[in-house]
Amino acid sequence: MKRAWAAGLDMGGTNIRCAAVSAAGRVILMERGPAHASRHAGDVAENIATQLLHLLDTARERGLGSPRAIGVAVPGPLDVHSGIVKAAPHVAAWRGYPLRSKLETLIGRSIVLENDANAWALGEFWRGAARGRRDVVLLTLGTGVGGGIIVDGKLVHGRSGMAGELGHVTVEPEGPPCDCGARGCLEAYASASGLRGLVEARLGLSAGARLPATLLDADGNFSVRAMSAEARRGDRMALETFAVAGNYLGIAIASFLNIFNPELVVIGGGVAGALPYMRKTMIAQVRERAFSAISAEVKIVRAALGAHGGVVGAAYAALHQGR
Amino acid sequence: MKRAWAAGLDMGGTNIRCAAVSAAGRVILMERGPAHASRHAGDVAENIATQLLHLLDTARERGLGSPRAIGVAVPGPLDVHSGIVKAAPHVAAWRGYPLRSKLETLIGRSIVLENDANAWALGEFWRGAARGRRDVVLLTLGTGVGGGIIVDGKLVHGRSGMAGELGHVTVEPEGPPCDCGARGCLEAYASASGLRGLVEARLGLSAGARLPATLLDADGNFSVRAMSAEARRGDRMALETFAVAGNYLGIAIASFLNIFNPELVVIGGGVAGALPYMRKTMIAQVRERAFSAISAEVKIVRAALGAHGGVVGAAYAALHQGR
Repeated sequence: MKRAWAAGLDMGGTNIRCAAVSAAGRVILMERGPAHASRHAGDVAENIATQLLHLLDTARERGLGSPRAIGVAVPGPLDVHSGIVKAAPHVAAWRGYPLRSKLETLIGRSIVLENDANAWALGEFWRGAARGRRDVVLLTLGTGVGGGIIVDGKLVHGRSGMAGELGHVTVEPEGPPCDCGARGCLEAYASASGLRGLVEARLGLSAGARLPATLLDADGNFSVRAMSAEARRGDRMALETFAVAGNYLGIAIASFLNIFNPELVVIGGGVAGALPYMRKTMIAQVRERAFSAISAEVKIVRAALGAHGGVVGAAYAALHQGR
Repeated sequence: MKRAWAAGLDMGGTNIRCAAVSAAGRVILMERGPAHASRHAGDVAENIATQLLHLLDTARERGLGSPRAIGVAVPGPLDVHSGIVKAAPHVAAWRGYPLRSKLETLIGRSIVLENDANAWALGEFWRGAARGRRDVVLLTLGTGVGGGIIVDGKLVHGRSGMAGELGHVTVEPEGPPCDCGARGCLEAYASASGLRGLVEARLGLSAGARLPATLLDADGNFSVRAMSAEARRGDRMALETFAVAGNYLGIAIASFLNIFNPELVVIGGGVAGALPYMRKTMIAQVRERAFSAISAEVKIVRAALGAHGGVVGAAYAALHQGR
């Protein structure tokens, strides 16, 4: 008898990850390809379909047979009922694009769509840091800030599946502009783009100006990892900027505690690597602002699944949230 | 055959309401008594029990027989699993008080405890403005600001039942002090005590100082209704203060929309009467800050049940959330 498994795909800003995931949540097979940078929504959908079909072929060759279900995680708010992308950070033309039906036509099977941060939350809930918990808030601190909320063991979708945009709560009404068009969102502080903006403001640079070489990676792009290295060697600008980001992260988390009374807050994403430099101000704000009866019984932990979170969660969504 | 019904009790700051509620959510019988102002937790519990027992007697005399379940709504965060009050705005001695077990001993029956704003949300969901909806955020703007969240048709309790403290999200990090001990909470703006504080700050008065007579009720207390009358006749101070409160209410609602993607936001409580003077700035912030895909499909409406919301919701909790 063949093993029951699901296919999970996670579309990131630069990579697409695609995996065969067992019914117990183990990754059996993993493939990685480039995220198509085309401005045409159709090209991006075809690229996703091509990589999914490749995974299905490989799985068949390895004797795994067909997946029981297929889940696809994509960035940006989407309507999970209609399968339509409402807004997409990387692909402007994707706004209003009927992604699910396009993928279903290209693949010839039904697909479960999920927001990428929601998928990550499901992954951590199934196999990661939130295993066995019922009430969880997950934050992904990456280029932007994403969120996923689990209440009583179920992902919060809201009316159309757009719930969980935790990066877009206001933490400073007159704060810096956010990519979403508002100002002072959590994302404008505790993401890579937010940190870059804080550095620019601090150095009096205009947006997108060339930053000091110590903050750049080998390709000349702003790098939170490089900035963490600066902080580690005691650089005041890096330390103070992280402290500001941690401060606002703490303000947002305190609000989430009072809203959700969660057992666990899970923090993932590339910027989570800089948590040691944000933790002090973060914790101070949580202590000051959350009800002590709530904060006393919550744990704030790092995500456990790393880059696997999205594909595992997409597979979970496919197995458990199918239409 | 006797009608199936539940008893619901709602403990407010000045009154206790107690009702027999049919299994269909209709109020069959309603009694009202004073909220005991004693500083002793035991006295307050006895007062609640006395009024409940009186309702049960009246119901029996009228041929209604015994209730199927009993629900009690009280202010402040409480642990719904253990039945222990974690903090209580009106009764300091109540912190850590095992209210449910005390009431069960006094009444001789099992009791379902619920936070008052949560109960109100359930009431509106069952028989009020949110009837037939699945994803709802309720705000009660009274002396303080309470909240209740319904996700996919169920009240969000969180780990111990303290979820939904929507009055204690930060909307202005360096804002005015809040009764909870933090600063810049929604409650510090959009509640009666918050509005009073805004007026005091505007007039350069110290906290608790005597306010202009136009803002007082017949007993000499600050009155949002009196301030609304001032706004209605064009008083600039009243209008601008309501505009500030509406601004922060809008900032908080925008965050709730991005977090929950609700179908409906329901606003109740005495301060909701002043919504006409807060609406403009509130809506402007929602438009500026919430994802348009989310805000386009949400409605913001007034609560429908008024003073009955709490007892109806307490009865619902008793019937549907029993242990």
